[in-house]
Amino acid sequence: MAEHSNEEKRSRLSAALSSGAMGQARRMLNGGLPQVDVAHLLEATPPKEREILWGLIDEELRGDVLQYLSEDLQSDFIGRMNAEEVLAATTNLDLDDLVDLLQRLPDAVIGEVLQSMDAQDRHRIELAMAYPEDTAGGIMNTDTITVRPDITLDVVLRYLRWHDQLPDSTDALLVVSRRDDFIGRLPINKLLVADPNITVREVMETDCLKLQATLEDTEVAKLFEKFDLISAPVVDDDNRLLGRVTIDDVVDIIREDAEHTVMSMAGLDEEEDTFSPALKTSRRRAVWLGINLLTAFLASSVIGLFEGTIQQITALAVLMPIVASMGGIGGSQTLTVMIRGIALGHVSGSNLRWLLRRELIAGAINGLIWAVVVAVIAIIWFQDIKLGWIIGTAIIINLLIAALTGTLLPVLLKKMHIDPALSGSVILTTVTDVIGFMAFLGLATMFYLAH
Amino acid sequence: MAEHSNEEKRSRLSAALSSGAMGQARRMLNGGLPQVDVAHLLEATPPKEREILWGLIDEELRGDVLQYLSEDLQSDFIGRMNAEEVLAATTNLDLDDLVDLLQRLPDAVIGEVLQSMDAQDRHRIELAMAYPEDTAGGIMNTDTITVRPDITLDVVLRYLRWHDQLPDSTDALLVVSRRDDFIGRLPINKLLVADPNITVREVMETDCLKLQATLEDTEVAKLFEKFDLISAPVVDDDNRLLGRVTIDDVVDIIREDAEHTVMSMAGLDEEEDTFSPALKTSRRRAVWLGINLLTAFLASSVIGLFEGTIQQITALAVLMPIVASMGGIGGSQTLTVMIRGIALGHVSGSNLRWLLRRELIAGAINGLIWAVVVAVIAIIWFQDIKLGWIIGTAIIINLLIAALTGTLLPVLLKKMHIDPALSGSVILTTVTDVIGFMAFLGLATMFYLAH
Repeated sequence: MAEHSNEEKRSRLSAALSSGAMGQARRMLNGGLPQVDVAHLLEATPPKEREILWGLIDEELRGDVLQYLSEDLQSDFIGRMNAEEVLAATTNLDLDDLVDLLQRLPDAVIGEVLQSMDAQDRHRIELAMAYPEDTAGGIMNTDTITVRPDITLDVVLRYLRWHDQLPDSTDALLVVSRRDDFIGRLPINKLLVADPNITVREVMETDCLKLQATLEDTEVAKLFEKFDLISAPVVDDDNRLLGRVTIDDVVDIIREDAEHTVMSMAGLDEEEDTFSPALKTSRRRAVWLGINLLTAFLASSVIGLFEGTIQQITALAVLMPIVASMGGIGGSQTLTVMIRGIALGHVSGSNLRWLLRRELIAGAINGLIWAVVVAVIAIIWFQDIKLGWIIGTAIIINLLIAALTGTLLPVLLKKMHIDPALSGSVILTTVTDVIGFMAFLGLATMFYLAH
Repeated sequence: MAEHSNEEKRSRLSAALSSGAMGQARRMLNGGLPQVDVAHLLEATPPKEREILWGLIDEELRGDVLQYLSEDLQSDFIGRMNAEEVLAATTNLDLDDLVDLLQRLPDAVIGEVLQSMDAQDRHRIELAMAYPEDTAGGIMNTDTITVRPDITLDVVLRYLRWHDQLPDSTDALLVVSRRDDFIGRLPINKLLVADPNITVREVMETDCLKLQATLEDTEVAKLFEKFDLISAPVVDDDNRLLGRVTIDDVVDIIREDAEHTVMSMAGLDEEEDTFSPALKTSRRRAVWLGINLLTAFLASSVIGLFEGTIQQITALAVLMPIVASMGGIGGSQTLTVMIRGIALGHVSGSNLRWLLRRELIAGAINGLIWAVVVAVIAIIWFQDIKLGWIIGTAIIINLLIAALTGTLLPVLLKKMHIDPALSGSVILTTVTDVIGFMAFLGLATMFYLAH
């Protein structure tokens, strides 16, 4: 219901904007719509109209909107604000969201913002900014509620009632020693059902997961998925409690991680603004086109080696893209399965040999089937049996090489700490193009010259 | 810490297995390792060894392991069990996980399993199975704790203490009328801080999100992400409370949805077992190779139209893959950005024109830049200025067509309810291959014949 009426409000806002009813639009942007919807609206709006929208949002609400925007847009908007404006916009933010935003600012402005905060807030922010953005420490919140192990649950319940509200995603209180050493967690659900007269120590869980502050965020996400967590404590090297990571941030990481794979396969950045201007867009994409151009020239130079053969038998020029294309498709199927297998932790040294054998067999089977089909078509088309043998053999060779490359390449890239999703398919198709042209034109040169 | 020692246990298990210490391996599989780790181990093991592992797991623990397996493996194992074994394996499962498993069984076995359950369980399962697997009703759990609006919080707290434990991910109690109509939710966090003497009605949230049972699971996931939810109530058309969806299931959906995009781009199924046998693998992939072969022949037949020109100027055969490849890369960049934009809800009728213009401008800029580069190289390589003009023009044409196709194709496919991630790139590269060869060879025929 709530969602439905937001949809309605959003279209009313669009109507107000296009009809020039700015007063009404301003009211809707400042309280009429949830901030997350305002952020979504900004993301879904081309630059010029986006500027107008942003100008209509009250200064003190801008921080709330900013936290829901993609990095690209955050940098864009926040980069134009001075320290005072940043401070006005961010007073109501959660610590982890504030830290995220601060990291988009130039150092000088960060310093100014920190200066104008009270000592405790400054200390907490400096603590969180000490860890890279993509670690447990970088995504943690410090809004933990901690208790000591030797008080009774009744005392805990009365202590909680002192709060106006508990932080979001509080599914457990964290039990610490006098020195802030992490001891265990007291799940709210246990607190509610246990006898109020027993102590925290008797109910708390000590064999629970704790995250080292330096743990990578994708590893954090895997642990949350595996153990169905809502929140998890973050500790430093000395087991001192620093804060906690909550599921809402983990969901964002999972989503970003997935987008990263899809976008980097096309040489794109997952934080890219859908409506970034043409010049910026073309600059970002030019690099990828350039890299692919290099590999295309490599393939061309292979063809160049066989110009003489092509001049004699032009059918080769007609059919050669088929050999390269079949290798590329087969190889990227293997590559995709391997990249996923590695990401899921299924691939290890002990089963790599099994996978390679499976891929080679599957490549051989599909190679044989489609080699026969292509050979028959080629023979009928060009009335040349030799051509059929040659293209069939070339397809089998290329599908086997594709299986080999698709299996081993991502493992190799991973070992070299290169993202296989980004560079894997470029390298793979270069290999299948080169091998495809080489095998097909090479075999043709051998057999037609021997004639 | 807990995680660390599991890693250790897992390698100890592998060692036990390979050294033939079956007793030790059996102990580790049945209680020594968490079930989620046993499931992961099965996923990461080739078929033959997997059979051995499965045989070592106690019958009554198999259900717990099954729930963590991918669909492919679930079907494989559960398909071989009879109703009695299924029942023995699944007694401890959550309702939603049990329903998931049942859906992999033949109808006759489902009937037998349902027969042997008590009436209440049977009723609840039939209720959940009434909704498709990929809807809110299909993923919901019925383990809700409900309260009436006019009792005091003190009564609620005492009522909760009657439970041994609360269901996982219980962040709120659900408030219902005598007829089970959904009225609102009582967040646990409010229950803990509010005065125990006031009534549920005074604290409950009525303006909260409720999910229609027929809502698609990907829409459910979007709402959870947007509002940072831990759980949400599911209601039927009459606003009667049916159950609730919890964040752990939503995380799975987000992950599967992301995998689906990546896998379908290579014509693969996201539920595919990493270690499925060679024959099964090659059968699944053959279809995709066949579809791509069709499009490759289409491109070939375009080249075939220009055999005469190629025979006179073999440089055309050497350079033609470059034109096709640049179009393919440029087009898939546009396609990827558009598919993501559509998934995020950024693309609408009102801004599609802006996006098309942006893509055409970006395509023209990159077309111009790389056309010049390729032309210069072609001129130097083949000592032929005309060839430079021809290939440059062909590249610009192909990048513009790629931008046009990449922008409009996914919108069109979406309108026709076809998944753009699955068929988008095949259609796109067919277009850029055909247009690339046509433009390059066509221009060459025109200009060399005019000579």
